[in-house]
Amino acid sequence: MPSEFELIDRHFASVAAQAADVVLGLGDDCALVQPPASDELLANSTDTLVEGVHFLPDIAAEDLAWRLVSASVSDLAAMGARPLWFSLAITLPDGNDAWLAAFSRGLKAALKAYSITLIGGDTTSGATRVLTAHVQGAVKPEQALKRSGAQVGDLIFVSGTLGDSRAGLELLSHAVDSADYEFLTQRFLRPTARVELGRGLTQLASAAIDISDGLLADLSHILKASGVGALVHLEQLPLSDSLAALYSEEQSQEWAATGGEDFELCFTAPAGRRDEIQLLAKELGLELTCIGEIRSENGLQVLSQGEPWAVSGAKGFDHFGEEESL
Amino acid sequence: MPSEFELIDRHFASVAAQAADVVLGLGDDCALVQPPASDELLANSTDTLVEGVHFLPDIAAEDLAWRLVSASVSDLAAMGARPLWFSLAITLPDGNDAWLAAFSRGLKAALKAYSITLIGGDTTSGATRVLTAHVQGAVKPEQALKRSGAQVGDLIFVSGTLGDSRAGLELLSHAVDSADYEFLTQRFLRPTARVELGRGLTQLASAAIDISDGLLADLSHILKASGVGALVHLEQLPLSDSLAALYSEEQSQEWAATGGEDFELCFTAPAGRRDEIQLLAKELGLELTCIGEIRSENGLQVLSQGEPWAVSGAKGFDHFGEEESL
Repeated sequence: MPSEFELIDRHFASVAAQAADVVLGLGDDCALVQPPASDELLANSTDTLVEGVHFLPDIAAEDLAWRLVSASVSDLAAMGARPLWFSLAITLPDGNDAWLAAFSRGLKAALKAYSITLIGGDTTSGATRVLTAHVQGAVKPEQALKRSGAQVGDLIFVSGTLGDSRAGLELLSHAVDSADYEFLTQRFLRPTARVELGRGLTQLASAAIDISDGLLADLSHILKASGVGALVHLEQLPLSDSLAALYSEEQSQEWAATGGEDFELCFTAPAGRRDEIQLLAKELGLELTCIGEIRSENGLQVLSQGEPWAVSGAKGFDHFGEEESL
Repeated sequence: MPSEFELIDRHFASVAAQAADVVLGLGDDCALVQPPASDELLANSTDTLVEGVHFLPDIAAEDLAWRLVSASVSDLAAMGARPLWFSLAITLPDGNDAWLAAFSRGLKAALKAYSITLIGGDTTSGATRVLTAHVQGAVKPEQALKRSGAQVGDLIFVSGTLGDSRAGLELLSHAVDSADYEFLTQRFLRPTARVELGRGLTQLASAAIDISDGLLADLSHILKASGVGALVHLEQLPLSDSLAALYSEEQSQEWAATGGEDFELCFTAPAGRRDEIQLLAKELGLELTCIGEIRSENGLQVLSQGEPWAVSGAKGFDHFGEEESL
């Protein structure tokens, strides 16, 4: 087995692209970076993916790298921050060279897609594969999309379509060769963090969060932080054609409401900004759908054809072990 | 089992002390922090501890927290940076309440000792305990203690005493009730990152590294980065009274040369700065010992009583799995 230092040189040195703000990159006790201008804040987020919990043991190395980067950059998107730097901690049972080569290829492509620079990390051995990403970005204080800004009367929007990732996970255990299968599994394996949308919303949205635990669970965080309630119409949740083609309306709606890891954004905005939001949607080529509104009554009410809707999993992933920022 | 969110609220909320530069702490998509003044750089480092690799399964939770914080802050010390922010990723097999309470107590005490603020993280479940810390600090560009600054003729110094941590690890499997046992095991379980020393060296040292893999392995990183060689005298390595009391001279010297995780600093400085270095040692109440000098010949030569010294483990932990920054 090659030594650890050789592994690092071989696989990660080329991933650490030079960036103007990186004064000292890999290979010293710390990386040294030039902080953003003093009128910006630094946004920090940490995400861990554990084998058997967040990804299947047989996931392709490139897909795993993509998911790790997207899941972590998605938190910057939800804050309206522009991505700056990425640090990687990776624990592996062995130094499998082919696996590391594929992983670093995927890592390089994903970092490039989001214009974020690898500045350091740590490689360790351990029985279970565990990957932790720490991401940093920059945002002006008055533009940061906090969870706490939702106001009574604001409209609630989501980007893209929901439930696809949950369906993609389900489909992975089947081998179906169709365009719909391909679309949904790619939505699970290669999610897209909505960085451009987050940047565009900094002047429009009153609150935002990324959908990692499931729409209702994540929207609940906005409601709690803002001290408000909400009404959501199940029929208004945007579904992809592929989801609707392969699953019943009932199943599709349940996954759209509670399925995690779509990494779309859920945000609130004053009703008067609706036109500007639709203009932004057009500019980005990304659907932005109004699904309900913020109310003063506490709690989250979901209506299906005018009747209260309830489902066992409606609270999303609220158990020890799923991803959650501290 | 309490939900994950309850666990976080219960154990970590109180650890995240308020700091003037933390604009938004735990509980949103990102933490928002005020970057340092524009004449400083941000120093970033990542460290992972894996159960069974870096710590024994029966380690006390408070000791584990202390080791994690010290090991990661030690990289800031080696860069001459002042500690700012700490992010924690923690993977545990279960949500053991008593364990988490003890861990968060240890975390709080260690963070306070180094004046570093918890700003976020991620908690996940997984079969093996894995802890990753990301630390950030600030240092002026011209004061950063890089590995690459050692010059021919510079003297080589180390802080404190070496080999204690390695002996402490050995002693943990015995139950000896003595002051020496206590000293050495505490050196392993509760190492001290030399932050004040690193700050004091920013105007004195030409290169620095913290001793995590073992003196000779870590000094080799300085030599490689600086493109120089070195001569080290084995007899000059500083040994604690406790190490000398419990182990033979030969064993003590071997551990001082190759044992890891003392988290002392190894640094180089021009011979003309020797008096200032001894003054700093006096101010800090910390021994700073000259152990050799930088030479133009490539490689690291170690002499024992004037003869070349070699030991099987002399290269330190150079295999896949041990701690190493990317």
